[in-house]
Order: sequence, then C-alpha cells, then structure tokens
Amino acid sequence: MIDAGDHLARMRARAPLVQNITNYVAMNVMANIMLAAGCSPAMAHDEGEAAEFAGLADALSVNIGTLDPAWLRSMEAAAHVMNEAGKPWVLDPVAVGATALRRDAGARLLALRPTVIRGNASEIIALAGAEAAGKGADTAHAVADAEDAARALALQTQGVVAVTGEVDFVTDGESAWRISGGHALMPRITVMGCSLTGLVAAFAVDQAPLAATVAALAYYAVAGEEAGRQAKGPASFQVAFIDALHALTPDEVSARARIEAA
Amino acid sequence: MIDAGDHLARMRARAPLVQNITNYVAMNVMANIMLAAGCSPAMAHDEGEAAEFAGLADALSVNIGTLDPAWLRSMEAAAHVMNEAGKPWVLDPVAVGATALRRDAGARLLALRPTVIRGNASEIIALAGAEAAGKGADTAHAVADAEDAARALALQTQGVVAVTGEVDFVTDGESAWRISGGHALMPRITVMGCSLTGLVAAFAVDQAPLAATVAALAYYAVAGEEAGRQAKGPASFQVAFIDALHALTPDEVSARARIEAA
Amino acid sequence: MIDAGDHLARMRARAPLVQNITNYVAMNVMANIMLAAGCSPAMAHDEGEAAEFAGLADALSVNIGTLDPAWLRSMEAAAHVMNEAGKPWVLDPVAVGATALRRDAGARLLALRPTVIRGNASEIIALAGAEAAGKGADTAHAVADAEDAARALALQTQGVVAVTGEVDFVTDGESAWRISGGHALMPRITVMGCSLTGLVAAFAVDQAPLAATVAALAYYAVAGEEAGRQAKGPASFQVAFIDALHALTPDEVSARARIEAA
Repeated sequence: MIDAGDHLARMRARAPLVQNITNYVAMNVMANIMLAAGCSPAMAHDEGEAAEFAGLADALSVNIGTLDPAWLRSMEAAAHVMNEAGKPWVLDPVAVGATALRRDAGARLLALRPTVIRGNASEIIALAGAEAAGKGADTAHAVADAEDAARALALQTQGVVAVTGEVDFVTDGESAWRISGGHALMPRITVMGCSLTGLVAAFAVDQAPLAATVAALAYYAVAGEEAGRQAKGPASFQVAFIDALHALTPDEVSARARIEAA
Repeated sequence: MIDAGDHLARMRARAPLVQNITNYVAMNVMANIMLAAGCSPAMAHDEGEAAEFAGLADALSVNIGTLDPAWLRSMEAAAHVMNEAGKPWVLDPVAVGATALRRDAGARLLALRPTVIRGNASEIIALAGAEAAGKGADTAHAVADAEDAARALALQTQGVVAVTGEVDFVTDGESAWRISGGHALMPRITVMGCSLTGLVAAFAVDQAPLAATVAALAYYAVAGEEAGRQAKGPASFQVAFIDALHALTPDEVSARARIEAA
Repeated sequence: MIDAGDHLARMRARAPLVQNITNYVAMNVMANIMLAAGCSPAMAHDEGEAAEFAGLADALSVNIGTLDPAWLRSMEAAAHVMNEAGKPWVLDPVAVGATALRRDAGARLLALRPTVIRGNASEIIALAGAEAAGKGADTAHAVADAEDAARALALQTQGVVAVTGEVDFVTDGESAWRISGGHALMPRITVMGCSLTGLVAAFAVDQAPLAATVAALAYYAVAGEEAGRQAKGPASFQVAFIDALHALTPDEVSARARIEAA
C-alpha cells in the first residue's frame, strides 16, 4: 500500500528546490501552492539560464500552456540536464492536441522521457496518439477513456503517467492506482492541474516516482475535500484549498487518502 | 428592454471557448472570472499558433496591456481569422494613449473593426482621437466625457463600444444604454476591466453584440454589488466577487440588473 | 525619529504612478498590493516603450525574477530616464547569485546606481560580492549576516539598501534602522518581497529615500501583524494582508510601527 502522508512528510523534510518552466497563467498560484505544501519553487525559463538553473534544482516541471519556440528550447535543455543528473522532471502537456506547435512540443518532450507525465484525459490521449489526435483544447474525455493511452505512454517512456479527473488514474505501465477525493469546484478554477504537476515534481525527489505521484495526488484530493467544506464558490475554494495544503499533517493525509489498486 | 439574465443563461448553455491574447497581469484572474461565469477561457498568443487556435475558438479577446510587437502580430492574425469566420472579437485598448507603441497598436487593431471595444473613458477618448490624445495611463475622465467618442468609434467600426466606470455607457452609434451598479472598491483591484472584456466576448457568441455587451456589464455590476456586502477590503472583495459570478442565477441577474436606455 | 504614518499619508496624497518592470509571478499581486496601499501601478516592459513610459512615471521598480536579455535592456533604458529626471528607482535583485545571467544583470543595474535596493540577505550578500557569491536561489542567510554587505553597497551606489527578513535592516551606509513586525506566514507566500519593492518606489516619490524606505517597510510589517490575527493559512493571510494595507490609517501605522535606530 502507498502511505501518502509518509511521502508528504519526506517531501517536507527535504523541502526540494523545484524549477518550473510553466505558463504565465499558472506561475503565481503554482508558487503559492508549492510554498504552502512545503517545497521551494523557482521560475526560470530564459535560454540563457534555464539549463544552468536546472543544475541547481532538485527537480523540474515543464508545462506547455503558453508555449513559444524559445521556451521549448529552454525546456529541452533543462530536461536534458535533469536526465544527465538522474533528477526527476515532470511534463504537463496542456492542450497538446490543439495546435501544430503543441503537438510538435509534445513529441519533442516525450522523446526526452519525462519521469512523470500529468494531464487530463484528453491530453493523455492526444499525447499517446501523436499525429492522429488534435481535437482542440475543449475536448472532454473521461479518465477511464485514457487508461489504455496512459499505459502505452508509460511503457514508451519507461516513466509514470497520471491522468487526473474525478477519479485519478496513475500507472507505470504495469501496476496502476486510482485516487478518489477532491471537489466538484476544482475544474472551475484555473491552473489547479498545472500546480499539481509542480507538487508531483517535489514529491518525486528521492522517492520512487510511481508511489510519489500517487501520494501527491492523494494529498491534493484530501485538501480539495477539506476546502469544499468551507467554500462558497470557486475563489473562496481556492483560498481554503491553499490553507488546507499548508495545514494538513502527514497523519491526517494518511488517514483520509483514498487510494486503491486499479 | 434587454434581459441580462436571459443572455447569461444562453452564454452558460453555450459555454463558449474564448481565446484571450491578454496581458500578463490579467491572465490568471481573467481565467478564473470566465470559469466562474460559465465559459471556457484559453490563453494562446504565440505567432506560431495564435491564428490556428482562433480557428478552434468561438470568440476572441485582445488586450494590449503588456504589449510587444510579436504579440501585436498574433492579435492581428487571430482577429483576421475571427472576421473571416464571422465570429466575435473584442478589443481592450489598455492605456492606448500612453506611448507610440500603444497608439500604433490601437490604430492597427481598430482597422480590423472589433465586434466590441471595451475601455475606460480615457482609453475610449484616446482611441477615438488617435494621434491627438496620448496623455498617459493615469489620465482620468468621467464616463460622460467619452460618450461622443464612443458613438464616433462605434460608427467608424460599425461595432459596439462600451465605456465602463461608475455608470457604464454602451452604444452601437445609434442607440445607447446605461448600466448602474458595481462597487467603489472595484477600481482598487487590478484587471477587473480586462476580465470583463473576456466575458463580453463570451456573451457575444451567437448573441447580438449590443444586447450581449449590455447584459455582460449588468451581470458584472450585480456581482459587484453582491460582493460589496461581504468585503472588508479589495482582496476579500475579489474573492466574494468571483464567488458571486458563479452563484448568481439568471433570474437573480434579471431581477437586479439596472439597465436604462440613454 | 521616522514617522511611518506620516510618510504613508504623503504617499497616498500624491498617489504616484509607478512603472514596474517586474517578473511574471509578481505582476498581478504586486498591482493589487500597490492599489490597496493607494498608489497607481503600471506594468510596461517592452523595449519599444519602456523608456517612453518612464518619462510618464513618477518612479520605477525593476525586478530580475524572470529575466531575459530584452527585458534587461528595457530596465537599463528606463532606469537611465529616471536618473536623468531625478526620479527614484528601486532594484529588486531576485536570486542574483544563482546564474551568470543574473549576476551580469545585477552588475549592470548596480552601475546605474539605484535609489534603493531591496532584497533578502542572500541577495544583498551576492550583489555586494559580485563574482564571488553565486550560491543559488535557495541560500539562506540571516539579515544580520548581510549588514556589512548592505552598508558597502549603499556607499558604493550612494543610495539606500534594505535587507528584509524577520527584522528588516535599512541603511544609507552611514545611519541604519531596524524594523520589526510582520508574521511567520509571510515567507510561505510568493512575491511578498517583490510587491514591497513597488511600495518602496511609491514612498520614495518626493520623500527622502532612507526615511521613505523605512516607512514603507514599517507599514508592511504592521499590515502583516494585522493579517496574522485573522489568517488560517497562507492564502487567507494574503487576502487579509491586502485588506489591511487598504484599511490601515496613517495614525494606526504611526502608533503601531516598530522602528529603531541600529
């Protein structure tokens, strides 16, 4: 069994420095979510320093939400540094099927074999299908529709793939886990998924990627349930959610996490 | 008479995908405001995908707040796609009179005849006056000072122009409307206007632009009044405002909207 | 003695326009913090308008958090305009020791002699030591460790240097002050320091830089204490903090500020 609280405790004790090359929409909230959880986020994306900064960081998250060609080169350079050093990096393939720029970015980053990929069902399906997909950013698939794609991607990259949604699905291509929890308001708040990607990177430092990913998702889901008790709408939910990430103890997370083998 | 709640209900039923090429300050809050209201925002601005993404979107909003030359080219390309497809696009001419870069951008985007222009009084005056204005970002005019400029701009673009402030003014050059409501704290919170521009784009999908714009402004004003009842300052106001956008029903908006012919 | 409330009252009466060339993470919150306090922030960074916009602004803040080479040129051009016009500008040397790009930016901006430099202890030590430092973004020093570096930098630039932390230290190289207050949650929220840098620029308009800087820091610390009374975690702290910046009167700030000569 995976003890999510135990992974949280180790992440907090380590307090890793995580470099994020992420989209403009996410940067502020993602930093606050990572600080509240207990790690140390840094945003550095310029070609002139991305790789150098990666040498200082314990982990890297890469997000193609507001992509441009120069950023893609920085992402590749930083991912390469992490691979050389045996440090984890996590890919968030935002709307990867929507445009040629994103499909190309997805393929190039996939070739660098991310330690973990985290996306919604449509993104994981598009990433696995490469050329074939491309249905746009608003395509809606259920998590269950993406399980085969997730397994295939995991085997292809020899990494972990997480499909998040009402019930999350995480696999390394062999075993798989489902994580329940969260709250119905979470899809009405932007960058909740992007921010989770940063937390997955933090959990994966010095911890086995599959269990670390499952634990990060379970912690997020518990915080979502907690926030849902107090929220009057999406903005008060976000405030309560970040407060909950900060307040939850490892023991509370262990007791309330809902993880089962798939 | 314009029934704001009816327009809100149709926007929510349609849940349009709105592409926003907007400034860095606005991106996160704008996305949250649009999600809370019930549409689907996406931020995609790179020259390599802006026009392609416009082909997927139901509407476009363009905002020159943190402009650079490459973004301006993306804005023009995306606006051109919307025009060709007969889909609405909305211009937010932030501080358009302040610098040569902004005056040039304003003139070039105006030539593409936005479906709707939304700005404060100083921006609408500067945009209508082109070369003559240029008084800087902190020029303060009352909405009433900009009514003639708004009418002239609307006739020039054959579109709708909205001047927002204590009492909003909306015209298509022929008829005109005034919308009351909101709250005194709203000018002490950044990007409230930018975010409203995105909502106007969402309301304008498959709805007549003049009525859709009036309805979006009235909905915003009702949410502002609601938030003002609970706020202790600008930050708690913003939280309550986004919660109110999410909670308000079309019937409540219809009952509380204060719209009158000008 | 420095009367912080008196400086706040003068800043609010003046309501200066402050141009900020700052990082993407900070832009939104910084604008809201500056609006709540009572000044007028504007973000304009493109090379095509940064210097022109500086001609309109009363003060400038420059922050290297998400730097790239084009932004650095804009920063230098805008700082030059402020120097020529005798208007204040403030430097925030985020993670200046971490990479070659940042060390180079720090050295170039230092040569333009900022009116005020505000950083954490590690940043001030790195900036004073130039080539020698470079220990990365997560280096942790206590404020006391940076006092000598702060004095040396102040003498070198003939400006003011502020080191913020649990107890802040401000010096012009001759006299020095310590400011207490704030709250333990403040380091768990991103861009609190960046936003303070913008406030320092606003306070420095038409006020002596040393006293203005001390007053801005004391006002911030009082708001932090006030917010700490209501916060349940970092996100509710941020909401309460911005509300407090807006609600605090000059008299309250004068009564509660904890400033002492160092």
